[in-house]
Amino acid sequence: MRIDIISAVPDLLSSPLNTSIIKRSQDKKLVEIFVHDIRDYATDKHKTIDDKPFGGGAGMLLKPEPIFSCIKKLQSEREYQHIIFTTPRGKILEQTDANRFSLAKNIIILAGHYKGIDERVIEEFVTDEISIGKYVLSGGELPALIMVDVIVRIIPGVLNDSESALLDSFMDSDRIEPPFYTRPANLNGKNVPEILLSGNTKKINEWKEEQSQLLTKKWKKINRLE
Amino acid sequence: MRIDIISAVPDLLSSPLNTSIIKRSQDKKLVEIFVHDIRDYATDKHKTIDDKPFGGGAGMLLKPEPIFSCIKKLQSEREYQHIIFTTPRGKILEQTDANRFSLAKNIIILAGHYKGIDERVIEEFVTDEISIGKYVLSGGELPALIMVDVIVRIIPGVLNDSESALLDSFMDSDRIEPPFYTRPANLNGKNVPEILLSGNTKKINEWKEEQSQLLTKKWKKINRLE
Repeated sequence: MRIDIISAVPDLLSSPLNTSIIKRSQDKKLVEIFVHDIRDYATDKHKTIDDKPFGGGAGMLLKPEPIFSCIKKLQSEREYQHIIFTTPRGKILEQTDANRFSLAKNIIILAGHYKGIDERVIEEFVTDEISIGKYVLSGGELPALIMVDVIVRIIPGVLNDSESALLDSFMDSDRIEPPFYTRPANLNGKNVPEILLSGNTKKINEWKEEQSQLLTKKWKKINRLE
Repeated sequence: MRIDIISAVPDLLSSPLNTSIIKRSQDKKLVEIFVHDIRDYATDKHKTIDDKPFGGGAGMLLKPEPIFSCIKKLQSEREYQHIIFTTPRGKILEQTDANRFSLAKNIIILAGHYKGIDERVIEEFVTDEISIGKYVLSGGELPALIMVDVIVRIIPGVLNDSESALLDSFMDSDRIEPPFYTRPANLNGKNVPEILLSGNTKKINEWKEEQSQLLTKKWKKINRLE
């Protein structure tokens, strides 16, 4: 899979793209990630990428031409199944969206910045407007990284077996994992639940399932789901 | 405000913490951000920070002792109003949570990693379990960065006036911004809506409000809200 990220603040993206599982997915040649600086597509000598909105109002917008140039260049080189724009007005990301995107061969993730982007960019190119949640961020860069992470980690071969356990919560349904404990069994008087030390696999699995159901119920209640 | 981030993968955090608005909030001395590597608090010679879960199952857990040491050290130095743990089972972040956290003097953000964390850490220290959304990530580092961004940008003085416009969506209610356009008015035959070029401020503001309401309605429908 190939992911092209288009951003006005490419420096922000470097450490998350070069660490941990996202790095490994690239080292294993399962994913190629390219970052494009919108400024490289500006045409005037000052490399201007923003301008004031028509009709007034505070804040600057990303100019349309540099983004048009960048996306047209990429599209001339290969076909993209999704051109995703990270924006507060988008569909709020859920695991099923990530699953769908992870099946694509080539995707573009366009990160919003400043007050926003000229609407004609969205009309012309964007196939999916995605929000990562109901909160206000400084820009679309962190959402773009979130998108990369959720998509990349479910590509077959990216995770090793022990990490695959991470897939549990939310993969098929709204299921929260049970509590976990590791050594020492007694930590300054705080003990691990005895059942986990019993060696009785059947009882342990029953306990885990029961705890998972309790936590899932609690989670749904906190978040007013169902 | 002071934010201490505790992580097993501190390298992942560097570029977002040192770019754009998060960087500026620190340059302006409005926010201090410290990153703590859990490994620095490991006590054995191999600097072990993970271990297998009691009761079996795939995946490794973050060991409790290094995190206990790290948080106890920080707590011995100052009082923390919130110790936030980024976890899929948490309350799904909304703007009101960010507003609440931004009023604190000192907070800790503990990033989950691997399969999870020993439950006793949560019982002992964590005041707020927060999820950034219903999707599976490789670790809690990107959620920790999201938390920093949403919190920092609403601290008075962090944003300059023109950026403050970014606050619009979601600040008081579920309101989506109208579409925005900038120069050129004609981009390869794609025109900016005429009203925005009319100079009639009253009509322009009516149009913006109408568009905002339309997009908010569409956004609520897509996301099955209300």
